[in-house]
Amino acid sequence: MIRTHEAGTLRASDAGTTVTLAGWVARRRDHGGVIFVDLRDASGVVQVVFREEDAHALRNEFCVLVVGEVNARPEGNANPELATGEIEVVASQLTVLSEAAPLPLPVDDAVTASDDLRLKYRYLDLRRSGPAKALRLRSRANQIAREVLHARDFNEIETPTLTRSTPEGARDFLVPVRLQPGTWYALPQSPQLFKQLLMVAGMERYYQIARCYRDEDFRADRQPEFTQLDIEMSFVTQDDIIALGEEIVSKLWSELADYQVQLPIPRITWTDAMNRYGSDKPDLRYGVELNELTDYLRGTEFRVFAGAIAAGGYVGAVVMPGGASQTRKELDGWQDWAKARGARGLAYVVLDAETGEARGPVAKNLSAEHLSGLADAVGAKPGDAIFFAAANERREAQELLGAARIEIAKRSGLIDESAWAFCWVVDAPMFEKTDEGGWTAVHHPFTSPNNEWVDRFEEAPDQALAYAYDIVVNGNEIGGGSVRIHRGDVQSRVFDLLGISPEEAQDKFGFLLEAFKYGPPPHAGIALGWDRTCMLLSGNDSIREVIAFPKTRGGYDPLTTAPTPITAQQRLEAGIDAKPKPTAGTPGTDGQAVPVERSN
Amino acid sequence: MIRTHEAGTLRASDAGTTVTLAGWVARRRDHGGVIFVDLRDASGVVQVVFREEDAHALRNEFCVLVVGEVNARPEGNANPELATGEIEVVASQLTVLSEAAPLPLPVDDAVTASDDLRLKYRYLDLRRSGPAKALRLRSRANQIAREVLHARDFNEIETPTLTRSTPEGARDFLVPVRLQPGTWYALPQSPQLFKQLLMVAGMERYYQIARCYRDEDFRADRQPEFTQLDIEMSFVTQDDIIALGEEIVSKLWSELADYQVQLPIPRITWTDAMNRYGSDKPDLRYGVELNELTDYLRGTEFRVFAGAIAAGGYVGAVVMPGGASQTRKELDGWQDWAKARGARGLAYVVLDAETGEARGPVAKNLSAEHLSGLADAVGAKPGDAIFFAAANERREAQELLGAARIEIAKRSGLIDESAWAFCWVVDAPMFEKTDEGGWTAVHHPFTSPNNEWVDRFEEAPDQALAYAYDIVVNGNEIGGGSVRIHRGDVQSRVFDLLGISPEEAQDKFGFLLEAFKYGPPPHAGIALGWDRTCMLLSGNDSIREVIAFPKTRGGYDPLTTAPTPITAQQRLEAGIDAKPKPTAGTPGTDGQAVPVERSN
Repeated sequence: MIRTHEAGTLRASDAGTTVTLAGWVARRRDHGGVIFVDLRDASGVVQVVFREEDAHALRNEFCVLVVGEVNARPEGNANPELATGEIEVVASQLTVLSEAAPLPLPVDDAVTASDDLRLKYRYLDLRRSGPAKALRLRSRANQIAREVLHARDFNEIETPTLTRSTPEGARDFLVPVRLQPGTWYALPQSPQLFKQLLMVAGMERYYQIARCYRDEDFRADRQPEFTQLDIEMSFVTQDDIIALGEEIVSKLWSELADYQVQLPIPRITWTDAMNRYGSDKPDLRYGVELNELTDYLRGTEFRVFAGAIAAGGYVGAVVMPGGASQTRKELDGWQDWAKARGARGLAYVVLDAETGEARGPVAKNLSAEHLSGLADAVGAKPGDAIFFAAANERREAQELLGAARIEIAKRSGLIDESAWAFCWVVDAPMFEKTDEGGWTAVHHPFTSPNNEWVDRFEEAPDQALAYAYDIVVNGNEIGGGSVRIHRGDVQSRVFDLLGISPEEAQDKFGFLLEAFKYGPPPHAGIALGWDRTCMLLSGNDSIREVIAFPKTRGGYDPLTTAPTPITAQQRLEAGIDAKPKPTAGTPGTDGQAVPVERSN
Repeated sequence: MIRTHEAGTLRASDAGTTVTLAGWVARRRDHGGVIFVDLRDASGVVQVVFREEDAHALRNEFCVLVVGEVNARPEGNANPELATGEIEVVASQLTVLSEAAPLPLPVDDAVTASDDLRLKYRYLDLRRSGPAKALRLRSRANQIAREVLHARDFNEIETPTLTRSTPEGARDFLVPVRLQPGTWYALPQSPQLFKQLLMVAGMERYYQIARCYRDEDFRADRQPEFTQLDIEMSFVTQDDIIALGEEIVSKLWSELADYQVQLPIPRITWTDAMNRYGSDKPDLRYGVELNELTDYLRGTEFRVFAGAIAAGGYVGAVVMPGGASQTRKELDGWQDWAKARGARGLAYVVLDAETGEARGPVAKNLSAEHLSGLADAVGAKPGDAIFFAAANERREAQELLGAARIEIAKRSGLIDESAWAFCWVVDAPMFEKTDEGGWTAVHHPFTSPNNEWVDRFEEAPDQALAYAYDIVVNGNEIGGGSVRIHRGDVQSRVFDLLGISPEEAQDKFGFLLEAFKYGPPPHAGIALGWDRTCMLLSGNDSIREVIAFPKTRGGYDPLTTAPTPITAQQRLEAGIDAKPKPTAGTPGTDGQAVPVERSN
């Protein structure tokens, strides 16, 4: 090392020591004859005192080497805000290691800059303490997870990222293969297939902090490449995976967020989550639960509700405490909010703060009897607002109410930002109806029905439950997984129900099914969305903050300007326009679909 | 867990315990009325005794659950070869978890199968103890390296794998970008660029076990995707990186190969390595050093040697101990060997075992004087053979002799297969001549000249030395790195010498040069070829053995049959044939080249 000490580690006990430091000029202050410089390195900051003539050329973010003596700061000059605040280094020698041009992005935590600017100069952005801390936290999170897993004899195994295209998923990133012109690799959406094969291989305990790829339209906070902590175990039940997940999560939160997760983490069934919170990833930091009114309002003449009830659908409501005091404009705003979500509107009633009398457009349409019992039916008090949703599809109405619930919590300041509310959402449905009247797998077709349903899921596919589980914190799904089917007879019955013929199954899932002929063990797994987990742990609200070089919307990298056009020569060399040679033994071009477990 | 114990962990002290085991039928033996089954799980094997009627249906590789009691084996029946050999489990209950079809690949360490078959059924191959052990060793190697690095406060940071194409390298894997049709990402050949940017960002200590991609013709033992342990540090010298590399290597070999590496590992200069061993990755398990004869043979009339000497080239020799006893056919075989390497042949002299008299084609062409001193000049004894090489380019002749040296060691049985011989090859040249008479960077143009040359490398570019270092074991380069240039003036002078104009530099390396304007720290790094390192540690001779799902030549995966053709729909969706939209601010299509450090 060209330095003897790290700047941020110096203390009063070092006084009198001659030190060599190396780092960056974080700030300079001229005080007639002497110049004070905050010297920053990865460990922190220390004040260095130069004679004016020695340091007049120094500018912010010059990289420097300083030899000097550690002195106690003069009486009354200590800075209790700073770990090194009791001392300063009096410089005897200065070497400028490299200069800095005027900065396009000030290295100052107080300055806010646009994402594009921050990412274009990410190397300056990361000199700020917040962004640097987020990356360090992520490194530590990796280490903590690995400690848990290695203590339990897990093997870290790398799986391929140049693999087979899965047209089923439709949105694989593709890679032309120069050596076999006309053929392409796909980048994996998750290691799902390979981790199941590793279980068939008898590896028993697998994990990987795995890079995954998803060619999607970039919603809110997505990246084309993302990372998951991917885990699979053999000879286990759902409870084993849940216990492992809890151990990882509790260690992470304990060490990185100074929070002791209460174990076991509460479990809520998928159905309860939908009924009570209108979400399969409920935020449990606040109440504002949904109230089903389908039975209560049976017989109403209000067309919107009556229609849903007649169709076997759902009517329900959420209460906004104190919501009656909203202005007309605010109440209208809810209609816009609902429309932006694709709903037709959001019916409401407000209860007069004094009299408790129900007012508002819906009130006119309800009978006196329905109105008089309404407050009790939904647990509302005078002064509250009641928002309704009704739909032929239960889930559609519940999800609208669930979203309203979150919005109510935000607008009413009901969210304790310092709280951590964890839950497992379990007993997810196996199947959902397709528009064509058939069934599709909610998770993937290799997810196992639970014991209650494994022998009779055909009897009521809409009610059949899977051994599938998600872990949720503060309304964020940070992980999910399932027990897999390992019995050939069960797998065949699931394919039958899904309308997948044996030939089609062979075509789509051939090599996995082939593997499953040779004594597959019972196995189960989970994947934690690592970007989001680290984002939450670091107190950030974007996964970009925990990614060293993230991309902006559309997958653009302002730093390297990737992606770029390629040259004709590259195109030719890569065989992009080559026609594939028909080869004996090569399966059909429609390929094989791969089950995917991912959380991001 | 559905089992209470792991099969391989049972011992005599467990006798009397009722256990539930889960695993695979490794072998069954019928003994009139009882059936003995070797039950295998990840922990090992235990013998289970069934009544014949309970277990008659069991076949190899069925996956089973067994309840039984641990009994001491009857007197005289213990198996000292087996960790569980003192006991057996007497089964009271058997559940077949899944059956196995007839095996295409026997799960038996004694059976050898073709690579294609092994990889097609990799999940069966990995049930064999050898292949499974290799993957477990690799997991442990990761852990050991991380322990060293975390103890030194390194941060594990993931860098992008969807990044900018570098036409300079020409052989990037490319990925079409659907959301920006006509533009492409490239998969990185190494994280080199990003790790240097992380140093500019002040992260100071970075590492990553990084997936890298290289679209090359598959020589011997290469994979299109490979892994390196990638490291970069700021404020360090070459010695710091070497010391870190030694700590990692010595921990790995100590824990995984039961070998104590003598530290410090010897360093040999690049020039010495070439002069003595004819290789920049010398195998030091044996001698057979090269002997330069350029001066000794000066004045010879033998055309081949005289020509090289006159051209300022090189003549040298290696000695094959006892090589005079080779048959004519064996000696002719050396000519074929040399021609297969692209040489015109391999001149030789044999020394009569009795008289020491030199014989053979070259002997006729050398003067009596040259012949009489030859044995002393090369350190040969009667009965030895002496192989010669001569060329105008010193390196060409030395490399031929270096290859002959390895071949001699093999044919003469000089290689101690149990030995580990480590060395660092240091002081690599900065530049080498191009065919056009200019200079090109040996490493990459950001490699720093050493202190001796940094201010005057222009005076003798062919002699200028870099702070570049490779770590070599038994003739395998397992890692390499360099100190990087952080001074703008030095970088400009290197570009000047390489004939790269400022405009071209900007075009090729723009964003890295831009970053280097803002106070870059002195920094250096290394990359260890992780596949090869783990291959050596596991005692294998192919990197495929330490990769879970490797590809065969040409990048083909026999298991998934990737790569495959894609559908017209995929092609359309991915925007493969879209013309890029010219965008203001998008740099030219010829892009920017990225320096690459890799070891594989």
